[in-house]
Amino acid sequence: MNHTEALTRYIANFVDELAKSGLTDVVISPGSRSTPLAMTFAEHPDIKEWVIIDERSAGFFGLGLAKQTNRPVALVCSSGTAAANYFPAIIEAYQSRVPLIALTADRPHELRDVGAPQAIDQLKLYGDYVKDFHEMALPESTGTMINYVRTKAARAIHEAMSGNSGPVHLNFPFREPLIPDFSIENLWGEPLADPYHVWHDGRKKLPEALVKQLSEKLQSTKKGVIVCGPQIDEELGEVITLLAEKWGLPILADPLSQIRTGSHSKANIIEGYDAFLRNQEIRNLLKPDYIIRFGAMPVSKAYLFYVKENPGAQQYVVENHLGYREPVGNSTEFIFADPILLCSDLIEASATDTIRDGEWLPLWNKLNSIAKQYTLHASDTTLTEGEAVRRLLEVIPDKSSLYVGNSMAIRDVDTFLLSTSKSIKLLANRGANGIDGMVSSGIGAASSGIPVTLLLGDLSFFHDLNGLLAAKHYHINITILVINNNGGGIFSFLPQATSEKHFEALFGTPLNIDFQKAIEMYGGSYHTPQQADDLNDVLLECYQEEGLSVIEVKTDRNENLQWHRELWEAIEAEIVKTVMHCE
Amino acid sequence: MNHTEALTRYIANFVDELAKSGLTDVVISPGSRSTPLAMTFAEHPDIKEWVIIDERSAGFFGLGLAKQTNRPVALVCSSGTAAANYFPAIIEAYQSRVPLIALTADRPHELRDVGAPQAIDQLKLYGDYVKDFHEMALPESTGTMINYVRTKAARAIHEAMSGNSGPVHLNFPFREPLIPDFSIENLWGEPLADPYHVWHDGRKKLPEALVKQLSEKLQSTKKGVIVCGPQIDEELGEVITLLAEKWGLPILADPLSQIRTGSHSKANIIEGYDAFLRNQEIRNLLKPDYIIRFGAMPVSKAYLFYVKENPGAQQYVVENHLGYREPVGNSTEFIFADPILLCSDLIEASATDTIRDGEWLPLWNKLNSIAKQYTLHASDTTLTEGEAVRRLLEVIPDKSSLYVGNSMAIRDVDTFLLSTSKSIKLLANRGANGIDGMVSSGIGAASSGIPVTLLLGDLSFFHDLNGLLAAKHYHINITILVINNNGGGIFSFLPQATSEKHFEALFGTPLNIDFQKAIEMYGGSYHTPQQADDLNDVLLECYQEEGLSVIEVKTDRNENLQWHRELWEAIEAEIVKTVMHCE
Repeated sequence: MNHTEALTRYIANFVDELAKSGLTDVVISPGSRSTPLAMTFAEHPDIKEWVIIDERSAGFFGLGLAKQTNRPVALVCSSGTAAANYFPAIIEAYQSRVPLIALTADRPHELRDVGAPQAIDQLKLYGDYVKDFHEMALPESTGTMINYVRTKAARAIHEAMSGNSGPVHLNFPFREPLIPDFSIENLWGEPLADPYHVWHDGRKKLPEALVKQLSEKLQSTKKGVIVCGPQIDEELGEVITLLAEKWGLPILADPLSQIRTGSHSKANIIEGYDAFLRNQEIRNLLKPDYIIRFGAMPVSKAYLFYVKENPGAQQYVVENHLGYREPVGNSTEFIFADPILLCSDLIEASATDTIRDGEWLPLWNKLNSIAKQYTLHASDTTLTEGEAVRRLLEVIPDKSSLYVGNSMAIRDVDTFLLSTSKSIKLLANRGANGIDGMVSSGIGAASSGIPVTLLLGDLSFFHDLNGLLAAKHYHINITILVINNNGGGIFSFLPQATSEKHFEALFGTPLNIDFQKAIEMYGGSYHTPQQADDLNDVLLECYQEEGLSVIEVKTDRNENLQWHRELWEAIEAEIVKTVMHCE
Repeated sequence: MNHTEALTRYIANFVDELAKSGLTDVVISPGSRSTPLAMTFAEHPDIKEWVIIDERSAGFFGLGLAKQTNRPVALVCSSGTAAANYFPAIIEAYQSRVPLIALTADRPHELRDVGAPQAIDQLKLYGDYVKDFHEMALPESTGTMINYVRTKAARAIHEAMSGNSGPVHLNFPFREPLIPDFSIENLWGEPLADPYHVWHDGRKKLPEALVKQLSEKLQSTKKGVIVCGPQIDEELGEVITLLAEKWGLPILADPLSQIRTGSHSKANIIEGYDAFLRNQEIRNLLKPDYIIRFGAMPVSKAYLFYVKENPGAQQYVVENHLGYREPVGNSTEFIFADPILLCSDLIEASATDTIRDGEWLPLWNKLNSIAKQYTLHASDTTLTEGEAVRRLLEVIPDKSSLYVGNSMAIRDVDTFLLSTSKSIKLLANRGANGIDGMVSSGIGAASSGIPVTLLLGDLSFFHDLNGLLAAKHYHINITILVINNNGGGIFSFLPQATSEKHFEALFGTPLNIDFQKAIEMYGGSYHTPQQADDLNDVLLECYQEEGLSVIEVKTDRNENLQWHRELWEAIEAEIVKTVMHCE
């Protein structure tokens, strides 16, 4: 069999098995060595290809799409530093458990480490940041090798999706000529109705006796707190709120927990804790007997202090598969079980009369309602950063996603995202909390067809401006709200702000650029509302527009600091006045 | 001693020793965890800091500056994916032997792999792509630990610079609080006149007997070819041309060899080989007895064919330190020696009458002069890609640098860069030949104060548009010539061009964006000459301008292909007519 036919069959069977295993999308960055993969993906009828030139953006585009759809996404690039540009997205995918399949083309063995052009050592390029690495064999199309590529394809998808999802890396050495021949018979292999491999995964369920013991122990204790940190399962809300209501416990719900939004009951949801746990006295009032946490550690630094100050409270951390996400260092019982099964089992095992302290939940609710009152009615005509986020959350459409940038954006969403029955998926890159790749992440999520609002700061927007090209090229509908405080706003909240001499150069880092020009270059509509009410109108207008819409809200870092401080102080003062004096 | 004083002394002594060891520049990307390093670098009187927000651009800015100055450059970033964004520049630095010192801040051990924010595993993050990795101890300021940090600083510089230069990575765990106190006494350590460590490096010199043997062997053979591929030593030109003239040999000089430009003799320099070695008949005419190559493998694919077709010719590859850069796979004698010492030794060991074949060099010179005639007089009023490069090389100022992009740009420079006595340094990222980081590389080189012209295509320009911010922020003088053929022009020259169905989507990849807007956003002057003569004027105008000047030459990919083909065909036809028929 000649070289071209062997190459074609090998790659066609590989790509076909990816499709059969559930792959629907591939993000391709142009290059020569990757020609067999790129052309075969483009040829396959069941896979949609997205061509993105900047591989860093391509990686994050794939990440955003995979986060939005909970499906694996493949990345294809050429040899050399192209593959290295994926590294930030690969790390974020590993840390935030997103299934990416990185397929890197490579020079064959005889052209490695001999000074051949565009040849670097791609073996284990991403170190420990992939769940699996495999150096593929050179293309052959014997029966054994066709079974081998089908197995590798199916296994790559399964490894990316099973347990904690994450990235997988396959490296493909290719010899020239690189052009496949799609005219051969049975291009996609022997007609197979089913995937070559099928994988059945169980869910972790605690033994009945342990559930019973846990249930009894927790119910015999008065002051429990359920915490739900960042997690992506939209089904969790239903059972976790049932459990909280049965046990009479508050649920501290992180903005990325997917339980502040959705159709389930919100009776026990506490979303204002970041505001009122900032106060030491209030934290003292709320000393818990135990904390049971689902999902990752919440965004809130106030919550971190709360846990730190209560090392005596028994802490339980629930992990679906494996993980040690307990950064405080408190003594912890780890529960490795499927969170939904665990909640259901605990509900079933519960006694009828389960509420031990009739004052515990009302206290949390009261504090929460004061915080909410202030965040709801912080409403101002001035378009401050907080106000912009508040307005966005007022008008964001049902059945849409909000992709939130790091630093200030996620913190403002923590403050202003109140419980709502709207079905809104909250997405963010909280694996490594970078400011990189945000534009591509949002646009990747929007490429699924679900309406996406991307909220981020000017530094994040700048960092991945290149990401806008995909929105233009593919006419993707997305609304981007840029809070432009001309630099790194979060540093004003940190101790660095006291070091005047170097502050502006090293931390303030104003960009001093006019984004309008870049937005026009990428064919986006551009809006700069001046007043808070204008923002509502502009947002509603953008949600009707096709393609890329960017709204820029220009703010001042110092005013922003002041505004937030005043809000938190007002909440604390009100709580001290109305709650503490009643105690 | 308290935490802040220990932190301050530890980092101040480290930074001071870097300065004493020759570090003059640091590129800082903003972040919180890196505060001790960032602030201390900013405070040190002898180190200039450049603050660049996008870490990928920051890495390449450092690379360009280090390439231009042959001095080490330090990079400082915060924890998380910030460090991963350096990866493309680190790989390029490793492959093209550029001294970078990556200093990444990290969470301390107790905050690693426990779900703490912005904490990733940074140990050996760059795998085998650094010459040395060291996980630094937590800051302490005992005498032992001050000696330790000074040693680590001095050693990092030495490792980056010695042998084949390359990147070094030090990872710094820091605990809060992170702000140093610069008011302490003896901030920069005990007043030391000298660096704490001094390193003396020998140069590799072949034994006299071996030089004699080699010299005799080579001089007894008739048809030798000296090849000088990409290398950065501007002193090599003087001795290598002396050797060639003594032995009557042609020097095939790559555009990045630094020997097409400069004040040394150009009598034996062959710069047109890429054009005439494309023809099989001509290659047959030039069968060599031996090839001795200095520097990396040349850019020219025609040269690659020439070597491949002559496996019987003895091939010598000279490497200054270590390396196996022989991609053809021919039998090779590797000579590990300092190239300048080797040339001098060979000249000294040469017999007086050393020219064995009186027709060999004149033949090469004749072919070369025909090729040069055509490339010189290809001159056209139409502003084709080749014409643009030819015009640029006409007017580029003496004592300046030309930073050349990959793909088409470097190939056109190979064709059109004729020998000149102007002192022009040729720079390119030929370690991994990526299209990433080019804008920052050029601007980094220009930040040294030497005038820089950056020549690159539209995809490279797009890939690192973010790099332009540094030119605006620091008012760096640079002239950028963008050849915009709206996509990947080089693919038109490759077999992929025959696959019409997927070509434009996967390989042509037109950007369809108007760069003028981005250039205005970054405060650059923007020029679009229409005719070839206009380009000369515009270039001369830009060389007088302060700050960022961008010239966009809009071309057509198909016309470009046609134009190049016609040029090469004309050269081949002329050679076949005038040389082959005389044989």
